[in-house]
Amino acid sequence: MTFTQKLREVQLQQNSLLCIGLDVDLEKIPEHLKLSTNPILEFNRQIIEATHDLVCAYKLNLAFYEAMGERGLTTLRETLRLIPKSVLTIGDGKRGDIGNTAERYAKSLFDDYDFDSVTVNPYMGFDSVEPFLKNPEKGIFLLALTSNPGSKDFQRLKINGKPLYEKVVRTAKKWNTNKNIGLVVGATHPRELKAIRKIVSEMPLLIPGIGKQGGDLKSAVRDGCDKNGQLAIINASRSIIYASSGKDFAEAARREAKRMVEEMGTYRNSI
Amino acid sequence: MTFTQKLREVQLQQNSLLCIGLDVDLEKIPEHLKLSTNPILEFNRQIIEATHDLVCAYKLNLAFYEAMGERGLTTLRETLRLIPKSVLTIGDGKRGDIGNTAERYAKSLFDDYDFDSVTVNPYMGFDSVEPFLKNPEKGIFLLALTSNPGSKDFQRLKINGKPLYEKVVRTAKKWNTNKNIGLVVGATHPRELKAIRKIVSEMPLLIPGIGKQGGDLKSAVRDGCDKNGQLAIINASRSIIYASSGKDFAEAARREAKRMVEEMGTYRNSI
Repeated sequence: MTFTQKLREVQLQQNSLLCIGLDVDLEKIPEHLKLSTNPILEFNRQIIEATHDLVCAYKLNLAFYEAMGERGLTTLRETLRLIPKSVLTIGDGKRGDIGNTAERYAKSLFDDYDFDSVTVNPYMGFDSVEPFLKNPEKGIFLLALTSNPGSKDFQRLKINGKPLYEKVVRTAKKWNTNKNIGLVVGATHPRELKAIRKIVSEMPLLIPGIGKQGGDLKSAVRDGCDKNGQLAIINASRSIIYASSGKDFAEAARREAKRMVEEMGTYRNSI
Repeated sequence: MTFTQKLREVQLQQNSLLCIGLDVDLEKIPEHLKLSTNPILEFNRQIIEATHDLVCAYKLNLAFYEAMGERGLTTLRETLRLIPKSVLTIGDGKRGDIGNTAERYAKSLFDDYDFDSVTVNPYMGFDSVEPFLKNPEKGIFLLALTSNPGSKDFQRLKINGKPLYEKVVRTAKKWNTNKNIGLVVGATHPRELKAIRKIVSEMPLLIPGIGKQGGDLKSAVRDGCDKNGQLAIINASRSIIYASSGKDFAEAARREAKRMVEEMGTYRNSI
């Protein structure tokens, strides 16, 4: 089964487009957890327990774990073990390097950590992406138009009248022979999201930027989904995992996740 | 002192443009080392001991260490401790992410590992680069025109008649208010290297792609240096560290490093 098929199946089973970003920061987790042996792991464990039936994926931003050194990697590994197989995992590291190096990253993230998918930066071109594409079951999300302000600096530059991100989108579509490539498109760019979905009608779109970054949920669903109301993976991190800073953080996260899933449901029904 | 000044000083003191890439692979190191407690660290220790007076920098490709999990990070940290302060270190991870995430990467690489400089991917724009720029003493090398075949896929696309990599070069020059930005330009593109050096006469250029990848040392020196024969950092990895696969690997690495430094010297004298 290709990654794209797997995503369809998971989204159907879970009836959800929601991805929770486990971008966990020791400074932001509830005080009472700081007495645990591994506060971050305990935080993740409770968030996952409280939300795993509501999501299609968890996204783990590697920077947050790497910033904790060796212990962070162990926490990353142990967090991944807590995620049920019914849900996909995304290793968000935005890697990109020459072929022989990209192979290491692919091996580490797919074989060692066993991520279902990863994010990859397209700037270095095909040989930097290829090692991630070999196994059709493992997915990659190429950065196309990112959610941050800096996305305008290079991604929107015009090449023969068309923006660079569109060139990335069309190139990714060509490279997608194994049906395992998706694209990262920020919810902060609703018009462009709609245009990209038209170009890649059957490719997964990972959509960050809802909530704190200002993206709109309605357009993320309407413009990001394919015609079956699928293949958009809508990520929320801080608004869910830090919904409460008290002892009820996991419950509060569930409440917020559920609210989002229900809201998305109403938009999906009207696609 | 800014990173650029520091580089000038180190290159003057060491009288070298050579950077050795410690991209160490357990499968490629000499058999007899595999009995050590930590073969990679032992390999690095002997390479550093044998070559540190011949180089201006060591570049550590993070993928090679991350691929070894927690132990790899410990090895990375311990290798960094073995590098004398007279020589610069480059953390080659080609990171790039939205502001709050880039901050973590910067903190981890600069504060925790204490790298002198890192490589950064420009695709996500200014807010993804900014956290790396704050400390003028710490350097960043933005990917401009990389040494690999895939560099043609996006980096050479034309924007108003000029290639994307040139836009990155000119933008980096504008962002360089702290005098700590350099650029990555592959030795596999000699003409472009020359053109880039003309645009950024006072910025460091990190030049990979000599040796196995086919780049030419003469043009890397002549076209990569500033008018004082400085600011080009010419990287070689496999051709030096695997110069011999026997017990004499460190000696052989020194011989090859010395040969390169001497060859570079003749080209520098004729700048």
